[in-house]
Amino acid sequence: MLHAVIMAGGAGTRFWPMSRAALPKQMLALVTERPLLADTVDRLEGLVPGERVHVITNAAYADSVRALLRGVPAHQVVAEPCGRDTAPCIGLAATLISRRDPAAVMAVLPADHVVHPPQVFQQALARAAAVLEERAGALITFGITPTRPAVGYGYIERGAELGRLDGVPFFKVDSFREKPNARVARDFLAAGRFSWNAGIFVFRAQAILERIERHLPELAAALPALADAYVQQGAIPESAYRRLPRISIDYGVFERDEDVVMLEASFTWDDVGSFAALERVLPKDAQGNCGVGLSTLLDARRNIVVSGRNHRIALIGVEGLIVVHSDDATLVCRAEDAERVKELVNLLQSKGLADLL
Amino acid sequence: MLHAVIMAGGAGTRFWPMSRAALPKQMLALVTERPLLADTVDRLEGLVPGERVHVITNAAYADSVRALLRGVPAHQVVAEPCGRDTAPCIGLAATLISRRDPAAVMAVLPADHVVHPPQVFQQALARAAAVLEERAGALITFGITPTRPAVGYGYIERGAELGRLDGVPFFKVDSFREKPNARVARDFLAAGRFSWNAGIFVFRAQAILERIERHLPELAAALPALADAYVQQGAIPESAYRRLPRISIDYGVFERDEDVVMLEASFTWDDVGSFAALERVLPKDAQGNCGVGLSTLLDARRNIVVSGRNHRIALIGVEGLIVVHSDDATLVCRAEDAERVKELVNLLQSKGLADLL
Repeated sequence: MLHAVIMAGGAGTRFWPMSRAALPKQMLALVTERPLLADTVDRLEGLVPGERVHVITNAAYADSVRALLRGVPAHQVVAEPCGRDTAPCIGLAATLISRRDPAAVMAVLPADHVVHPPQVFQQALARAAAVLEERAGALITFGITPTRPAVGYGYIERGAELGRLDGVPFFKVDSFREKPNARVARDFLAAGRFSWNAGIFVFRAQAILERIERHLPELAAALPALADAYVQQGAIPESAYRRLPRISIDYGVFERDEDVVMLEASFTWDDVGSFAALERVLPKDAQGNCGVGLSTLLDARRNIVVSGRNHRIALIGVEGLIVVHSDDATLVCRAEDAERVKELVNLLQSKGLADLL
Repeated sequence: MLHAVIMAGGAGTRFWPMSRAALPKQMLALVTERPLLADTVDRLEGLVPGERVHVITNAAYADSVRALLRGVPAHQVVAEPCGRDTAPCIGLAATLISRRDPAAVMAVLPADHVVHPPQVFQQALARAAAVLEERAGALITFGITPTRPAVGYGYIERGAELGRLDGVPFFKVDSFREKPNARVARDFLAAGRFSWNAGIFVFRAQAILERIERHLPELAAALPALADAYVQQGAIPESAYRRLPRISIDYGVFERDEDVVMLEASFTWDDVGSFAALERVLPKDAQGNCGVGLSTLLDARRNIVVSGRNHRIALIGVEGLIVVHSDDATLVCRAEDAERVKELVNLLQSKGLADLL
């Protein structure tokens, strides 16, 4: 059976003033009327029902995640007492799932990305599961064909083509590459054999557990007791979890493994890393403006406008701005400064304005 | 005795989203913590006490004006049932004041201008009153020495110097000029004998009534009955008021009269005609930004930021913008588009968003 494990632990300061300590990016309705996390679960409808969806989140967000995701059983919203990167939480999820369904296939999905259209995405997941019918031990990752020399993503270097399903090729992975600088990103794009690493993985629960045992034995040794504690007490013991190695599944397992397969993504994908990314995922008006919420624009071009339901943003004559309104704060910046929102958040923190964060 | 007549009838759409149908410019705390109208009354403290202050306003604003100006007797906040420009309301005020104090001197003051410093302004009013000791019939207007070729103000052409008080000259007025176009404004500035017409006048109540009788006999004939009605009923009868000629005191009286005197203003003055004007009347930071309310700026220059007490505006990297937040709407425009706020208000109206206006 196909299970979904949704990684929803991110805090994120790049969406201030929408995102807050208590309202991380995955809980924001950035692109649709629903929070990104809810869209991520909805996107699985018909393929993975709520009873096979598992969400790993920060303890601070667990209650609001449970309130949001009514179709997901409460105990499948797993609250991490502290963040240990992705390998520990994927290992724990795999342990819990494989006990219930030893033949389980897991799709690991980021909670806060934009993926379209859902049908094509579901076909892609089903295709990955089909690859696992023949290559049971494979660790599958989806590669996104780059459309620009992005510096904000990790890259996957494709090796030999291993086969095709429905005409979609899958490849051996030669290497994973860290986020490149601008020059290297241009080289990757020109080379043609590099794909963006979307952080979407499919593998058998048993397979990832075997690989954790091989590549991260210390983590593997700790997982059964953590799973026991979670089943018995409904919570992960913090002291034990804190002792786990802090390591990503990419670095800890995928980069060290020989049987990693990349499936070319047939869906469109964006990680919506900052407000500037909304321009790629929202519909635009004739002047290139986009946004969510109420706005009235007069001779304004290429702006990104984010407001609430009860507040209208009016622009006159401006170009290339990001304007975001929340109840207690408004952000105005140039689209090219979207990444500097983190810097602004630090400035607010340093000025003792933590109540805004 | 010196009385003050404050003209507070303006509606004004150039300060949206701060100003609203029910909250005109004079009621906004644009420059200090207090509404411009309150500052205008406070500026007279020590020279003209509340019991000699008269405010002429729109019936829609009368209650909020009375609530704001606790020191002004309620019946001296005169509600106009409809606007008839300045000559009728100055005539009515002069009638009411001269009945109470036949030797009264009236200072007519716009409610929504910024004037500094109060002591110098009071000296200027006292100086005007002193001119009237010798020239009882004179109509005095204050001329502001232009600092730029402004197209938004009327101009006064100075004639012969008539004398000096404390070293400050006063002049015969040769002509009043309408708001000029840019070329004419530059000529006025270069010529050196043109001053801005601040709309601040000083004259004896009896003198302005005699001049209204001479230049606007139809208005003069209607004033006694209107004053009677106001004293007896506490309200101006709308049908009678609506029949008055709609005419300004500048055009109806000053431009037609021979004994008009211009006193050079020793105070600084700004009519704060739009948000862009705030840059002239508010203190600036080292990067040229100014504003009221809460803001946090990161590499932002020459912006005008207006927010409330409970909302923070954050800017990154932007230059030359006006950003104004109110509860239900936010405006972002370039400083050079400040006058287009009226256009935006029309657009909102046409889109059926009158609840925002």
